[in-house]
Amino acid sequence: MLSNEAFFKISYGLYLISTEFEGHKNAYIANTAFQVTAKPERFAISCHKDNLSSELIMASKKFAFAILERDVDQKVISKFGYNSGKDANKFEDENFFISEMGNPILKEGIIAYFECELEQSVDVGTHILFIGLLKSGKEIDLSKQPLTYADYRDLRNGKAPKNAPTYVEPEKKEKTEDKALSKSTKYECLVCGYIYDPEKGDPETGIPPGTAFEDLPDDWMCPDCGAGKEDFEPIN
Amino acid sequence: MLSNEAFFKISYGLYLISTEFEGHKNAYIANTAFQVTAKPERFAISCHKDNLSSELIMASKKFAFAILERDVDQKVISKFGYNSGKDANKFEDENFFISEMGNPILKEGIIAYFECELEQSVDVGTHILFIGLLKSGKEIDLSKQPLTYADYRDLRNGKAPKNAPTYVEPEKKEKTEDKALSKSTKYECLVCGYIYDPEKGDPETGIPPGTAFEDLPDDWMCPDCGAGKEDFEPIN
Repeated sequence: MLSNEAFFKISYGLYLISTEFEGHKNAYIANTAFQVTAKPERFAISCHKDNLSSELIMASKKFAFAILERDVDQKVISKFGYNSGKDANKFEDENFFISEMGNPILKEGIIAYFECELEQSVDVGTHILFIGLLKSGKEIDLSKQPLTYADYRDLRNGKAPKNAPTYVEPEKKEKTEDKALSKSTKYECLVCGYIYDPEKGDPETGIPPGTAFEDLPDDWMCPDCGAGKEDFEPIN
Repeated sequence: MLSNEAFFKISYGLYLISTEFEGHKNAYIANTAFQVTAKPERFAISCHKDNLSSELIMASKKFAFAILERDVDQKVISKFGYNSGKDANKFEDENFFISEMGNPILKEGIIAYFECELEQSVDVGTHILFIGLLKSGKEIDLSKQPLTYADYRDLRNGKAPKNAPTYVEPEKKEKTEDKALSKSTKYECLVCGYIYDPEKGDPETGIPPGTAFEDLPDDWMCPDCGAGKEDFEPIN
């Protein structure tokens, strides 16, 4: 009926959605932020119930969303998009400021941000649809182009993380045991789409070029999203 | 705080949202169709309460949305986007078929369509947020690129119609009486953004090149959206 390709033709932007409650700051990357009324302006976002952000937005009754710019550092997407705020304070070591409404906003990599007061939360199964009234916001750099979800997939080979409304389950591949794998086989991270290329290695974590995937340390992690070796599959 | 430009950096696609109830078929153009859950797939759309489509979706408990392709005929956008189905059957004279779920779908100008069964309708002020469970759909031509809202504005000088969630009120201009207007002054349609250029005229309705805006017949209408002369303003 409908292939993944059909879903990929639906256009979205990419946003950093942030909130704060009693000192707890968190943010996640989403492609679902859209205006639902014009007078006054209201926005809706969809957040997975398991996300720390859902708990914080419920408690704080507010959220901000920042439009990511096309050239935003991949590390911002990796850090905020593929990790949980339950495990670490994502804003630690980040260059951010606190907005008028008390939300954490990145100083770089964004075009503008919008801040909403929560009006309604709608249970839609795995996710909660948060509907907020626009109260505040600011332009950071309107000369930049926004990052779209299509750019993200086309230019960066990006994929939706498991809790995204647009997550697509990777097609099951044959067991690797059944295949003849060479030492030069590339491996793809099923969580974020990062590709490990043995020819390049992973110099940032001290893995020299020429290291086969099988020879990586057992505790090696995806440099983009932190997934373990078990989340990788060989690419033919 | 936030200029129109900041709002224009929010990325959307453009869709034809259609439904049918007891033989009444209708559709409108929207930039708000987005996936809210992945398992199972649910979508949300925002429709103005005054739109005939809102009544029909409420009654039929179903809707379809088709992804418009980048090169879709401007007339499709004009007809479905800037007119009300209360005044005329928009599908008359259109090349369409009836989908599995009974919704009217255009045969040309679309990439794929998705059909949802209505699960929830949420009152968000001027609009209703319809949340539907994906039940059906089909690919029409995946080789095409989707039309984005940015393309629409950049390439076609398009604007949101008055009932759109993203409608932006035109900035008030000085009274035309206070200005020296030349016979070559261009006029812009405040409803859809069409620009009347006296040098070009409007040959399709028999207005020859060289006709000043003031010399157009009183019943002349915007070729894109059908607005009257009173909805036009001179451009400096």
